[in-house]
Amino acid sequence: MTSSTQTTRLYHTPLSPFSRKVRLVLAEKRIEVELVEERYWENNSELLRRNPAGMVPVLRHDGRMLSESQAICEYLDETNPQPPLMPNSPAERYEVRRLCAWFDDKFNREVTRPILEQRVWKKVTRTGYPDSREVKAGLKAIKEHIDYLTGLLETRRWLAGNALSLADFAAAAHFSCLDYISDVDWDRSEMLMNWYATIKSRPAFRGVLADQIPGIHPAAHYAELDFG
Amino acid sequence: MTSSTQTTRLYHTPLSPFSRKVRLVLAEKRIEVELVEERYWENNSELLRRNPAGMVPVLRHDGRMLSESQAICEYLDETNPQPPLMPNSPAERYEVRRLCAWFDDKFNREVTRPILEQRVWKKVTRTGYPDSREVKAGLKAIKEHIDYLTGLLETRRWLAGNALSLADFAAAAHFSCLDYISDVDWDRSEMLMNWYATIKSRPAFRGVLADQIPGIHPAAHYAELDFG
Repeated sequence: MTSSTQTTRLYHTPLSPFSRKVRLVLAEKRIEVELVEERYWENNSELLRRNPAGMVPVLRHDGRMLSESQAICEYLDETNPQPPLMPNSPAERYEVRRLCAWFDDKFNREVTRPILEQRVWKKVTRTGYPDSREVKAGLKAIKEHIDYLTGLLETRRWLAGNALSLADFAAAAHFSCLDYISDVDWDRSEMLMNWYATIKSRPAFRGVLADQIPGIHPAAHYAELDFG
Repeated sequence: MTSSTQTTRLYHTPLSPFSRKVRLVLAEKRIEVELVEERYWENNSELLRRNPAGMVPVLRHDGRMLSESQAICEYLDETNPQPPLMPNSPAERYEVRRLCAWFDDKFNREVTRPILEQRVWKKVTRTGYPDSREVKAGLKAIKEHIDYLTGLLETRRWLAGNALSLADFAAAAHFSCLDYISDVDWDRSEMLMNWYATIKSRPAFRGVLADQIPGIHPAAHYAELDFG
């Protein structure tokens, strides 16, 4: 079997926003993928020990092992141009990359990671009870960030401009993880809720909407397409 | 004055690896820039309060305010193609982006940030004494990372392949911050030391080698071009 006929395989965890971003982009590009769930906290993962980043997601694709979610997504977009998820001009591409970095760095550090750590991972890994101060700080930060994103959507059809892009999938990956545990106050912004309802109704979203984390039930509206 | 005739200006801090990466790329592209040092920890920075990322570097360029260092660097490379810092094929570009992300995320989290936090920022901001366990953990992690990078350089002229790229400047930005306080054990890898000596001797490096942080003297070899 040559490398090019190997199945594309994604090592992921269901509520990792970085894994979800790659899953959404693979689905949008209609690249068939086999999902392998990694329980990296159990520290018995041969794959992750050998991966230089030591974390999910890792994509086996085109005969190589690929890590770092943003590098993977740009590679998938360049090698599978339809539908395009990066705009044509350098200034527009800058804006897509800026927003992806903003979500994966700042939004993750202030919102997604602390909230999931307290409300999901501590339960899954049985390492204690949620620290309510951490959860509160995350829920305070998300309000400011929702207002910032609403400001962007007042002048744009999608987050980085008038075309759907990687920035929307990066954002939707974070919001969908938080929405699973019902930690997005959609009432704060009809504009952002409409943006999320639109991206969530894409066929590419079906996979993540079917996720079930053992012991942690999704919010009632999580997989509903008309949740507004 | 129209926006296009405005001076390019970088709001930065001298020992931020993200600021340094942008400075190095600007210098390599021979884009003239006015440097403005931001003391963001003094919390009186109007600029940084208005910047959606709330941190350095921020580049005023082409009439816009740009944040997120990797998005800035790719934009500068696309709009100023000489000398090119991104290779031509998607697979090679993937490798450049993977390594930039690896340095700015993993290497920063495990090495640069904890070591600078303990040995530089606590002193500069007068917020306490260094925690030696944090410093030790950083110095342990850097050994493993030096070995990993040495493995890459055994098969490549530069870090991401046979051409100089953004990955080398991302890496050199981190190593130069650590080298300022003499926290790189260059004896561990002649190959990595030679790589650093080569990139450090480029004209683009002159600016960062002239940095002086008040109260913290650079290591004796910091600005020497023949330090091996």
